[in-house]
Amino acid sequence: MDINEEELLEATNKKGFKKIFQFNSKQKIQLQGGYINPEDTINLEEGEVITASDGLKYHIFKPTIHDYIMYGIKRQTQIVYPKEAGYIILKLDIRNGKVVGEAGTGSGSLTLIFSELVSEKGRVITFEKNLDFLNNARKNIEKFSKLQNITFVNEDFINSNYENFFDSFFMDLKEPWFYFEKANKALKGGGNFGLIVPTTNQVNQSINELESNNFLVDEIVEIFHRKYKINPNRLRPEDIMIGHTGYLIFAKKIK
Amino acid sequence: MDINEEELLEATNKKGFKKIFQFNSKQKIQLQGGYINPEDTINLEEGEVITASDGLKYHIFKPTIHDYIMYGIKRQTQIVYPKEAGYIILKLDIRNGKVVGEAGTGSGSLTLIFSELVSEKGRVITFEKNLDFLNNARKNIEKFSKLQNITFVNEDFINSNYENFFDSFFMDLKEPWFYFEKANKALKGGGNFGLIVPTTNQVNQSINELESNNFLVDEIVEIFHRKYKINPNRLRPEDIMIGHTGYLIFAKKIK
Amino acid sequence: MDINEEELLEATNKKGFKKIFQFNSKQKIQLQGGYINPEDTINLEEGEVITASDGLKYHIFKPTIHDYIMYGIKRQTQIVYPKEAGYIILKLDIRNGKVVGEAGTGSGSLTLIFSELVSEKGRVITFEKNLDFLNNARKNIEKFSKLQNITFVNEDFINSNYENFFDSFFMDLKEPWFYFEKANKALKGGGNFGLIVPTTNQVNQSINELESNNFLVDEIVEIFHRKYKINPNRLRPEDIMIGHTGYLIFAKKIK
Amino acid sequence: MDINEEELLEATNKKGFKKIFQFNSKQKIQLQGGYINPEDTINLEEGEVITASDGLKYHIFKPTIHDYIMYGIKRQTQIVYPKEAGYIILKLDIRNGKVVGEAGTGSGSLTLIFSELVSEKGRVITFEKNLDFLNNARKNIEKFSKLQNITFVNEDFINSNYENFFDSFFMDLKEPWFYFEKANKALKGGGNFGLIVPTTNQVNQSINELESNNFLVDEIVEIFHRKYKINPNRLRPEDIMIGHTGYLIFAKKIK
Repeated sequence: MDINEEELLEATNKKGFKKIFQFNSKQKIQLQGGYINPEDTINLEEGEVITASDGLKYHIFKPTIHDYIMYGIKRQTQIVYPKEAGYIILKLDIRNGKVVGEAGTGSGSLTLIFSELVSEKGRVITFEKNLDFLNNARKNIEKFSKLQNITFVNEDFINSNYENFFDSFFMDLKEPWFYFEKANKALKGGGNFGLIVPTTNQVNQSINELESNNFLVDEIVEIFHRKYKINPNRLRPEDIMIGHTGYLIFAKKIK
Repeated sequence: MDINEEELLEATNKKGFKKIFQFNSKQKIQLQGGYINPEDTINLEEGEVITASDGLKYHIFKPTIHDYIMYGIKRQTQIVYPKEAGYIILKLDIRNGKVVGEAGTGSGSLTLIFSELVSEKGRVITFEKNLDFLNNARKNIEKFSKLQNITFVNEDFINSNYENFFDSFFMDLKEPWFYFEKANKALKGGGNFGLIVPTTNQVNQSINELESNNFLVDEIVEIFHRKYKINPNRLRPEDIMIGHTGYLIFAKKIK
Repeated sequence: MDINEEELLEATNKKGFKKIFQFNSKQKIQLQGGYINPEDTINLEEGEVITASDGLKYHIFKPTIHDYIMYGIKRQTQIVYPKEAGYIILKLDIRNGKVVGEAGTGSGSLTLIFSELVSEKGRVITFEKNLDFLNNARKNIEKFSKLQNITFVNEDFINSNYENFFDSFFMDLKEPWFYFEKANKALKGGGNFGLIVPTTNQVNQSINELESNNFLVDEIVEIFHRKYKINPNRLRPEDIMIGHTGYLIFAKKIK
Repeated sequence: MDINEEELLEATNKKGFKKIFQFNSKQKIQLQGGYINPEDTINLEEGEVITASDGLKYHIFKPTIHDYIMYGIKRQTQIVYPKEAGYIILKLDIRNGKVVGEAGTGSGSLTLIFSELVSEKGRVITFEKNLDFLNNARKNIEKFSKLQNITFVNEDFINSNYENFFDSFFMDLKEPWFYFEKANKALKGGGNFGLIVPTTNQVNQSINELESNNFLVDEIVEIFHRKYKINPNRLRPEDIMIGHTGYLIFAKKIK
């Protein structure tokens, strides 16, 4: 495989087990039952099979951003999952060249997605007052991405002083309403604002406070993913599904 | 507002009504009850209010990619909606610099999203045998985007001859299984494949055919969006929700 | 068919169209495109076919309680639908011999179900302050049922004086919390209480007030029905589904 | 409490823990952390509190049919849960005086519900070829109910010879289509038929076979229950929900 020393790889088997590891790891990679040695992947092409020590076969891939976030990052906080992140991208208009803000950084999963999608011409500024979280997020992101478009700010967003600066802003904070005035000021006119909160009480309070802080509330939405077992002769949904992560709220800065 | 002649604008009111129009339109823009003249927006900043002929107030924005797809494009076919598109982006690893294929183009909603997210360094090649659809898709995309990274191919994908070319490929065709061999050949090793089908019978057949065409099936999933009425004193979901658009299937090319 | 003069019949076709009518109606029964005469059903057995004036074929049945509530009763109020009613029955332990209270009666759909399921040995007492509603509910019920186990009370439940009387009680009122003290007094120890409210704000207030009125809150639940199109070669869910009717709350009287 | 020797009781605490036991049990009843002695409930009224050996307080109730099925019966098979059972009752018109068939009996949860709801005037005939299952179901039912309206038949329903006998029939069998001809013959004209199957493939086959066996298919439906955490200050759904139990199919016998 055409890979550099630091490259991330993913081993996955037919049962859906996935493990993400670094090519240059000196250690054996423990899989479901057995293990593989990273250096044994050196002559493989993407998609090829490697046999683990217990005889189980694994395909080797470079991980997608989805899989890296689900299985590769180190989590110190609850993360915003791809099922929500995908919709956030489109609602907040995160794309080529945009300037995006985020508070807080958490484990950096959304930060990484924003960075990849605004590309070289774009910019991401992310605020996290907890230095441990911020350092962890930075490491998570650097392992996956070479883009240099993120500014990590170790500060509570409440202390920032941006004005008419961001095209879009996303907030994942416990009492987000305390930050709405700041966010409004920091956004450009017509800028896109999004937040996630876990309870209906927080939705109620957020809507009230957005409306009194020059935001036009655009949408309150929950997102569900219903997965099916991969068996075409007995096609049926998984027995258990995620019943709740959070309510997404989207608004636009008005004047 | 700092806008050029062709720029798209969006008028939206507190009730959630949205209308997308071109700044240089010579015609009055009909809204819910009254109308506005595009030229009256010339001195507005984004987010500011314009009053329609019937006295109703509208805020003026530049539309997000979400709103453009939902309210702005001309549809000649059933489109893949943002609720599915967001997840597709992350599962197919659509981001900065990627080379992405699509069959068919349809009305171009996914094509536009792919183009914006792979940016200048990336590339999108989209196949559509129906010339009317393709021309309509091209117009839809050009109105919104200045990126020059899309190749429109007026041909059934079955007649193409790509090998080890695409990082990712998405398919929205009636009998997709006839195209799996081509898609597999066209993808790079480990490449990401996605498709959408409306019926469980098509899911069954697709899974069987993917497994016999060197694909590792990764996920079968449905996505639901549950929207809430924007009233914090009477917070409740919308009475009606979309019950079904399609089943998403994701797979990876293996060797 | 072995039917008396007042009997209800249901005509249904392969497309799922259903119409409920009385056998002794003097009028033609208008169906989707054509009509039938009730007297033409006299020699039919249940399940047999009658051909309408436009040539379309309809099967004739005696309606189930489900279909009567969905298609047969006259509605003057929002009703509690069978998708919720079925679960209410089991949670409130509505069965042979039970004494059940209800406020308000509304259009009588739940009243009828309760009456049928507690049978001759059981009893239903239903409170409705709006006399028009009560009379309509009574007519709706009498058309379907011969059971004499319902007491219709044209009074706001707040003015009632029951003590340790009901095995179970269901409430569908706008501000139910004003009635919780009365309901608690009216229930036997350990009695089952249920209510439906449309908004999360009402759920919040109800839980708080139940807990301060000697109720042990047992469950807060929403119920969804996802219907499929009846086409085995193209099996897929309906495009549109009911996104919300109400939140069900269940509690038990404690001491 | 006014109870006989065999009576079932339920201990439940504020956290939602529930345990069903018999009053005359000689053994301590193990609860979450501590235990109670059944005889200590003798002077309690329903809803009153008993303190377990570890100091935790429990309210004592006579269990509802819902709780008995969820927490009280001994399961030797996958059961049909109350979330499906409630809707089945209304769709199959299970009520006062009806004659209802069932194959197979399984653990008897639906049998018990049917028996209670058709009351003394009604009748339930249930077929189960596995004698262990049938004996277990009978014990489950006798612990809860004194009604003598059930006939337990230790035979595969395929060997039965009923004609125009049942008002309604429910089937929970692995390959139900082999039994459709028998079920159709056993039902009265216009009779109500229901079945549950876990996979979409079984839905496809069932619909095809019902239509060729003189059934009019009425509905294919899935039922979801979404539960909320009982905390009015932080109202939010449970994190995990049941994603799938089975597809319900309803049909009517036609001629």
